Amino acid sequence: MSYVAPLKDMQFVIKELAGLAQLNALPGCEDASPETVEAVLEENAKFCSEVIAPLNVAGDKEPSFWQDGKVTTTKGFKEAFKAFGEAGWQGVQHPVEFGGQGLPKLVATPCIEMLNSANLSFALCPLLTDGAIEALMTAGTEEQKKIYLENLVSGKWTGTMNLTEPQAGSDLALVRTRAVPQGDGTYKLFGTKIFITFGEHDMAENIVHLVLARTPDAPEGVKGISLFIVPKYLVNADGSPGERNDVHCVSIEHKLGIKASPTAVLQFGDHGGAVGTLVGEENRGLEYMFIMMNAARFAVGMQGIAVAERAYQKAVQYARDRVQSRDLAGSSGPVAIIHHPDVRRMLMSMRAQTEAARALAYVTAAAHDVAHHHPDDAARKANQAFYEFMVPIVKGWSTEMSIDVASSGVQVHGGMGFIEETGAAQYYRDARILPIYEGTTAIQANDLVGRKTVRDGGATARSILALARRTEEELAAHAGGDLAAIRKQLSAAVGALDEVVSHVVGNMKTDIKGVFAGSVPYLKMAGIVLGGWQMARAALIAAEKLKTGEGDTRFYEAKIVTARFYADHILPQSLAYRTAIVDGAQGVLALAEEQF
Amino acid sequence: MSYVAPLKDMQFVIKELAGLAQLNALPGCEDASPETVEAVLEENAKFCSEVIAPLNVAGDKEPSFWQDGKVTTTKGFKEAFKAFGEAGWQGVQHPVEFGGQGLPKLVATPCIEMLNSANLSFALCPLLTDGAIEALMTAGTEEQKKIYLENLVSGKWTGTMNLTEPQAGSDLALVRTRAVPQGDGTYKLFGTKIFITFGEHDMAENIVHLVLARTPDAPEGVKGISLFIVPKYLVNADGSPGERNDVHCVSIEHKLGIKASPTAVLQFGDHGGAVGTLVGEENRGLEYMFIMMNAARFAVGMQGIAVAERAYQKAVQYARDRVQSRDLAGSSGPVAIIHHPDVRRMLMSMRAQTEAARALAYVTAAAHDVAHHHPDDAARKANQAFYEFMVPIVKGWSTEMSIDVASSGVQVHGGMGFIEETGAAQYYRDARILPIYEGTTAIQANDLVGRKTVRDGGATARSILALARRTEEELAAHAGGDLAAIRKQLSAAVGALDEVVSHVVGNMKTDIKGVFAGSVPYLKMAGIVLGGWQMARAALIAAEKLKTGEGDTRFYEAKIVTARFYADHILPQSLAYRTAIVDGAQGVLALAEEQF
Repeated sequence: MSYVAPLKDMQFVIKELAGLAQLNALPGCEDASPETVEAVLEENAKFCSEVIAPLNVAGDKEPSFWQDGKVTTTKGFKEAFKAFGEAGWQGVQHPVEFGGQGLPKLVATPCIEMLNSANLSFALCPLLTDGAIEALMTAGTEEQKKIYLENLVSGKWTGTMNLTEPQAGSDLALVRTRAVPQGDGTYKLFGTKIFITFGEHDMAENIVHLVLARTPDAPEGVKGISLFIVPKYLVNADGSPGERNDVHCVSIEHKLGIKASPTAVLQFGDHGGAVGTLVGEENRGLEYMFIMMNAARFAVGMQGIAVAERAYQKAVQYARDRVQSRDLAGSSGPVAIIHHPDVRRMLMSMRAQTEAARALAYVTAAAHDVAHHHPDDAARKANQAFYEFMVPIVKGWSTEMSIDVASSGVQVHGGMGFIEETGAAQYYRDARILPIYEGTTAIQANDLVGRKTVRDGGATARSILALARRTEEELAAHAGGDLAAIRKQLSAAVGALDEVVSHVVGNMKTDIKGVFAGSVPYLKMAGIVLGGWQMARAALIAAEKLKTGEGDTRFYEAKIVTARFYADHILPQSLAYRTAIVDGAQGVLALAEEQF
Repeated sequence: MSYVAPLKDMQFVIKELAGLAQLNALPGCEDASPETVEAVLEENAKFCSEVIAPLNVAGDKEPSFWQDGKVTTTKGFKEAFKAFGEAGWQGVQHPVEFGGQGLPKLVATPCIEMLNSANLSFALCPLLTDGAIEALMTAGTEEQKKIYLENLVSGKWTGTMNLTEPQAGSDLALVRTRAVPQGDGTYKLFGTKIFITFGEHDMAENIVHLVLARTPDAPEGVKGISLFIVPKYLVNADGSPGERNDVHCVSIEHKLGIKASPTAVLQFGDHGGAVGTLVGEENRGLEYMFIMMNAARFAVGMQGIAVAERAYQKAVQYARDRVQSRDLAGSSGPVAIIHHPDVRRMLMSMRAQTEAARALAYVTAAAHDVAHHHPDDAARKANQAFYEFMVPIVKGWSTEMSIDVASSGVQVHGGMGFIEETGAAQYYRDARILPIYEGTTAIQANDLVGRKTVRDGGATARSILALARRTEEELAAHAGGDLAAIRKQLSAAVGALDEVVSHVVGNMKTDIKGVFAGSVPYLKMAGIVLGGWQMARAALIAAEKLKTGEGDTRFYEAKIVTARFYADHILPQSLAYRTAIVDGAQGVLALAEEQF
């Protein structure tokens, strides 16, 4: 088996850190009982390991290809996607009324992780479809919902996000695609969109493009952007796909990784105009797109965790199998390299970072659910603030981390890691897109600094730090040993993050460039510290379980060791970031352009 | 121009940090006058930029390929290699008596950097040839020298290092290739070698394989390995290539990067035996191979610096050209992204690490030269110790750094970075081999811990720290401003490294696994701290030049800013490593194998 879902860790995080039982008690979450969740995850794990994971290498070796406007996906993808839809996996988190399973994000999240671990390229199609579903649910008309949602939720049709244009990447103010009203409630769209993931493919009967464009009288900048549905095939009155719409794929990109996922250049309106309908109100497109984007950003964060997990599993396997050099402590002959301290250090680093990021992401998903289902207004608000604060961190930190982990995975394989046939290099290539698409790490960091930290004067950030301090206090009850060591590092890290939050909030008005010079370090630091907080929580719970003798002793022991590793090897990096953020603006900003 | 040699920084480092004038005053270094060196570097820069750099993308897109035992290199490589040899570039550092230029390593080093910046794949052929030359000069018989050296130095023939076998990677004790004496002074070799860089190609008239093998009565392990010359074509009495020898390339690897460089599987003796001659004495092969390997390790460190420089240049170019989003401080429209703080932060990080690693490497090269040419025995010994201490750091740290830099280079390009046509991804792929071949970072770290730190009880390490402390004292004369800020961070970092040296030396006997659990962190930390020391030296000199008004003011200002960036953003990482090394062994070692 090339991928084995880490169900034990997932269940631990869901139950012990993210609070499944409390969530299950909320109105609307009654179906998410521990038993149901366990069954769903096991079924999903089986599907991902058996059906999707085996297509991962094939997708890299024989990527999607373009010919005469058509994209043919890797052999097997079409059938696998059909099976995916039929098994109901596209609908896990979507409403029952549209054919979904109506389960909380906390349950959908491990499913997304497994699908991405199995095959990052394949998983992108459902990922974008999820975004389209969310946008239509929020802003679509009843008719739009009726036409599109069931087909999207069932996986019969797929969705895309059309934002980027050659001149408009991170800066959507520059979008130029035009939407001309036809007087009959429809619009005709004209323009070029690039980097459209699964913008064209052969896996579904129809493709529902959600497209940012400007109406003729729209104001300039981001306030003049509207959102349109432009289906690949116009939809007949009976709901079936009809006439071909004027949106065409003129090429797909030759990429470093995720090669099976076709990245399309789409041409709208070259033959008279692509017919579209408006989603919601004119000029509010960016707002709706952010709905898709926030869900997608969180999901891309999960991609980082997923590829890190896969890279870790592969590296562990190789380290167990590869025999080379004697044991440092003495052995009669060569041993498996997992016995060598530096190989263990790399594996532990991969493992610890992956587990910490997983814990933080699942806890974030649970906050999203509580924010939607809790009867108490204050609890909803607090959880929504927590969720929104965490999204850029889950996205930015987990994806940056995944590059480091995938790179270590190659290193564990030594020379074999550099040979493509080995497979470790694919993760290193695939992971590289993650901190770029759906908003680069810098864009996430802008969001974290501006909207998420400074706007409320640091209140949300400090409320989260207060929670981390509570964990620190609980650790204080344990004198000596691993928990005391963890506390020491967590304490320093939380203190440093507190200082940084004050720096960011305090200097935004007087030194905006200086603050943003430290924005990505702040994001990474927040990820490291809050991931460390989750690992500390995990260690506390594991220690408790060991005391009571409940459950899998070896698992809990390993959790404490992993948290200890994280505390000594990862958490101290936060102090280095503190210096970079607080003292480092001068070095970032002082050079003139021509001095580079 | 796709690559512009950073001659200004190279000259600064050579003259101001590595002490060219003092070196030039030593016996045997009379030719290395500042004027000559300047002329050599300018000529080399021109050759590398104009002839070699343009082949870099072609080599990636249309790599070397194997057919029927023959390897055809990328179009243009053969002609370029001929021009390289004819211009005398293979011979820069080799003795005049064999046709070389007899220049110091300090002069050869920037030439190696430029060649590798221009084209990492191409540069590997001369790199391995340099190693073969060094091994033959040290251990070859007069006849072997006569037959091979001139042809290697002139670039008519090329050299290879044949160490690795499928079961013997990092662990050469496992080498199985057999060498059977024929009674006439020759041997017949039988076995398989893998990962042989430029093990077969069409760029030279002959290929001189240096091969590790065992004679029939050799002891087991590394003490039973001998070194043999096995030429691709046996050499006629008149010195011309004659009959084809029984060494054949049965395949080349499909790799993540450096695709133009053929990585061969070589089969020795499948048709009766490959004829070889012994180099030096039997069973001393590893010792001779280490001569090649130390030179090659230093050179691979230069590869890291070289690809980092190239990635930096490409990212700066893109950041200047790409217009996106308004300036944070306000602007009427979108600006070049080099104005955005996080883009600057990435560029500064790339720049600062590259400059620091370059400075450390060139200073190391100068120590090698002084160790060979100084009339005073104590000076020779001290410089040799310095050189040997630094080789694993230059190799390990510079190459690990290059991955980070190349990855940032992709990130600066945003979505375009992930598209292969852009070119940034090639550096990310190419760089990934550097911390693996010629000894993984863990192997370098073993060397640094064992032979270089513990063996002399930390004496060399502490003597280097004393030099760094002297720089710190000089910085103390400057109150306030950048130099004071640099001093603050350098001081903390040097103190931490001192503590770590004591930890390593003090615990080796009682807790060997614990010490090696921190070996790679120790190596990286040493690189960061000693690179920071060189940046601090550079800042001091730049400040002095600015005071006297001598030279290029903008260059010296930039050097101080870059050193300041390094101090605030890179140096503090050393403190995180200190914690990982001193406190982190438990987390590395505690898991049982089955708990991974």
